[in-house]
Amino acid sequence: MHTARRSRPAFGDATVPSKDRQQLLVASLRRLVRRGAESHLRRIVQKARSEDVADAMDELLDREARLVFGMILEEPERAAEVCAAYELSSIANLLQGLDAETLKPVFALLASDDAADILTELPEELSAAILDTLEDAESDDIEELMRYAEDSAGGIMSTDFFALDKELTAREAIVQLQENPDTEVVFYVYCVNEEGTLVGVLSLRQLLLVRPSTQLKEVMNSDVISVPVTMDQEEVAEIVARYDLLALPVSDEFNKLVGIITVDDVIDVLRDEATEDMMLMAGVGDEDAVQGSTFAAFRTRIPWLLAAVGGGLGAALLIGRFEDQLAKAAVLAAFIPIVMGLGGNVGVQASTIVVRGIAMGSVDPTRFFSAIFWEARVAFLMAIVCGGVAGLAAAFLGGGDFRLAGAVSSSLLVVMVFGALLGTSVPMLSQRLGIDPAVATGPILTTSIDLVGVFLYFLICIAWLDL
Amino acid sequence: MHTARRSRPAFGDATVPSKDRQQLLVASLRRLVRRGAESHLRRIVQKARSEDVADAMDELLDREARLVFGMILEEPERAAEVCAAYELSSIANLLQGLDAETLKPVFALLASDDAADILTELPEELSAAILDTLEDAESDDIEELMRYAEDSAGGIMSTDFFALDKELTAREAIVQLQENPDTEVVFYVYCVNEEGTLVGVLSLRQLLLVRPSTQLKEVMNSDVISVPVTMDQEEVAEIVARYDLLALPVSDEFNKLVGIITVDDVIDVLRDEATEDMMLMAGVGDEDAVQGSTFAAFRTRIPWLLAAVGGGLGAALLIGRFEDQLAKAAVLAAFIPIVMGLGGNVGVQASTIVVRGIAMGSVDPTRFFSAIFWEARVAFLMAIVCGGVAGLAAAFLGGGDFRLAGAVSSSLLVVMVFGALLGTSVPMLSQRLGIDPAVATGPILTTSIDLVGVFLYFLICIAWLDL
Repeated sequence: MHTARRSRPAFGDATVPSKDRQQLLVASLRRLVRRGAESHLRRIVQKARSEDVADAMDELLDREARLVFGMILEEPERAAEVCAAYELSSIANLLQGLDAETLKPVFALLASDDAADILTELPEELSAAILDTLEDAESDDIEELMRYAEDSAGGIMSTDFFALDKELTAREAIVQLQENPDTEVVFYVYCVNEEGTLVGVLSLRQLLLVRPSTQLKEVMNSDVISVPVTMDQEEVAEIVARYDLLALPVSDEFNKLVGIITVDDVIDVLRDEATEDMMLMAGVGDEDAVQGSTFAAFRTRIPWLLAAVGGGLGAALLIGRFEDQLAKAAVLAAFIPIVMGLGGNVGVQASTIVVRGIAMGSVDPTRFFSAIFWEARVAFLMAIVCGGVAGLAAAFLGGGDFRLAGAVSSSLLVVMVFGALLGTSVPMLSQRLGIDPAVATGPILTTSIDLVGVFLYFLICIAWLDL
Repeated sequence: MHTARRSRPAFGDATVPSKDRQQLLVASLRRLVRRGAESHLRRIVQKARSEDVADAMDELLDREARLVFGMILEEPERAAEVCAAYELSSIANLLQGLDAETLKPVFALLASDDAADILTELPEELSAAILDTLEDAESDDIEELMRYAEDSAGGIMSTDFFALDKELTAREAIVQLQENPDTEVVFYVYCVNEEGTLVGVLSLRQLLLVRPSTQLKEVMNSDVISVPVTMDQEEVAEIVARYDLLALPVSDEFNKLVGIITVDDVIDVLRDEATEDMMLMAGVGDEDAVQGSTFAAFRTRIPWLLAAVGGGLGAALLIGRFEDQLAKAAVLAAFIPIVMGLGGNVGVQASTIVVRGIAMGSVDPTRFFSAIFWEARVAFLMAIVCGGVAGLAAAFLGGGDFRLAGAVSSSLLVVMVFGALLGTSVPMLSQRLGIDPAVATGPILTTSIDLVGVFLYFLICIAWLDL
């Protein structure tokens, strides 16, 4: 993700990357690979940006992508950039068949967090062999990173940060920077004490602005935000977004500075979390299933639909109990869809507001009753309007039978407010119970609202219409 | 969002911001404002971070927030930080009653993009008066920014960037940096030619690594990505995320460098766009409505529900046409919910995958048929399973009437595949027609599927059951 960037002309002349140019790149690669036009291929790849090449290779057949990568491998820096930008779930396919010795120069150039991410995807044997070829300091860092949970601060941090003794002068600090050109892109200089504890931060710019003889501790900002290695990545992302940080230092349980999380990793987290919430609420499992095989998609999506089948059969049983009433007044069946549709829609509106609000920090899960009360008010207003419209229509359809109209109106009122209450309370309670609110809502929620809605509708109709 | 940060101890001792501490801050502010304990209040505010103070003030009553802000105003830098971090939709309330002269020092310290954003929210008269008090260069910049569309590159860029003539030496560049300590946080130095056209970039770090006599043009990276002022902010965010940039230069129609977009603004865009998509798909309008008044929420949400009412009444009319058949076989009504529920669920699954996939770049809207075909395959597999289970249950419920079971099974099969096709094609076609795919899906999509689903169900039942 954040390997050092090298001077390299863009693919084509324009400075703005575009989808069209990316498609052109994919098409060119495909054509040249098939024709075996190696020198052309080499030129195209050299002219394009690594992120674009990585993206384009992911569209080729595995065999073709490996061929292109074989060529890129001649230039290890380039290969490292491509690996860092490659879709992580496909990287094992790309590197298949290569041995540790071939991959060593690439891994030596990768940032430690990218190396750890990729090694986790490779077969254990290859992964161990690659670690063996690396220098001890490097492989220790990577192994350390591989130990942290994938979605924790430790799992997304990099160990290639720049920390200096707070006693150094600005002049000494600049010399240190000049002597270590290999560490990751630096924009903050972290200051540590003799125990390695983070005690302050200053920007590279500040370093330039002070007298060379000034000690770092005199000018550093000692109000530095840091997080523990165990913190959940979502919380990390919130902090980076809230305080507009470019990098966030990470400390271990002994309060020692062990890594930094850069803003580009946080962007990935924010995007992934939003996608995951949307997919869970739609009953599509998680993001991995989206691009997978037909059968993988089937497997993640079917459980949610079977839950809906269960709910639907429950509704069928329920309605079956009202067969006598239906036989007397078949028109009752006509309003089942509107009752179900509106209950479900209000439930989805309410639950989406709460799930996203919790994720964005705008809904406070501890203020249960104020959220419920707000939503109930909104739902009540909407139910009055929808119930009114539907009631008028029912009176008209029922040939002026105002009892039917009353039953439909009041059913909508009850079911919509119920849908709103369930839609608000289920995600809020899940959050407090430590369950992902996005899992608890979605199809399961709408199916429950359907079931209860149909039941309430029939009860109300029977009461109003004396059936 | 990105005013220069000053050394300031955190609220409390811990380095990790937490929700508990934030709630404590809100409670303290509230208590101290009500008690009128000004010196306590001043101390609490001075100890906390500006972002946290801004957030906490938004939870107070308007009157209370204004009182706190009055105190913060004594320190204009602080006031500028708080304004930059303040919820934009509430800032007009916060500044109400203050005059241009009082606000001048705050706006003089704000980054130009933040100033433009805030001025757009204020009453026109106040906004003009504030611009009048500022220096010409500054107010020109801000007015320029206010002219760009809110969701374009121009609308989110800042004009406080650091650009140098490519002919300068590294030594001269460092002197320039030292003499302009007021420009925004700098991490890239942009190099321009005599026309002001962007020709290259180098990092602050590179500047430190080269010999002082080196000219910038010798070491700069001339492969610099830039975007036009008119580019949509979503596309901008995609580019920043894709190439892991910390800042993205923006050029006007004459190819002149006019601003930069920093990664923190892009994070806001990514979060807002994800929220907007989720809200649109749930039929809740856009994010603004979420935290608004009851009536505002009602107004944005009701149109979607009225669309659902329309669909529901359409279904009622439809079912009304089949009243004779229902009178003969009331059990038909029992399976309306399962047909509607599954059609809708599959439609939501498919449309969510497509909408999010388009936003994330993993679904290519031009590859219409491959997406449709993939989704149809998945839906068919799922329909076989769901149709099978529901058919068995129907046979059981219908007392061994296999014709009913067959009708339910085949209806599910048809409706689920139809739901999947509509769920995939509607957002893909909208995208190609330039309509936001998230608007076109959501309640309108599920309501359409419901309507067609119920109709197909009755047709199939009539055919199978000879009604």
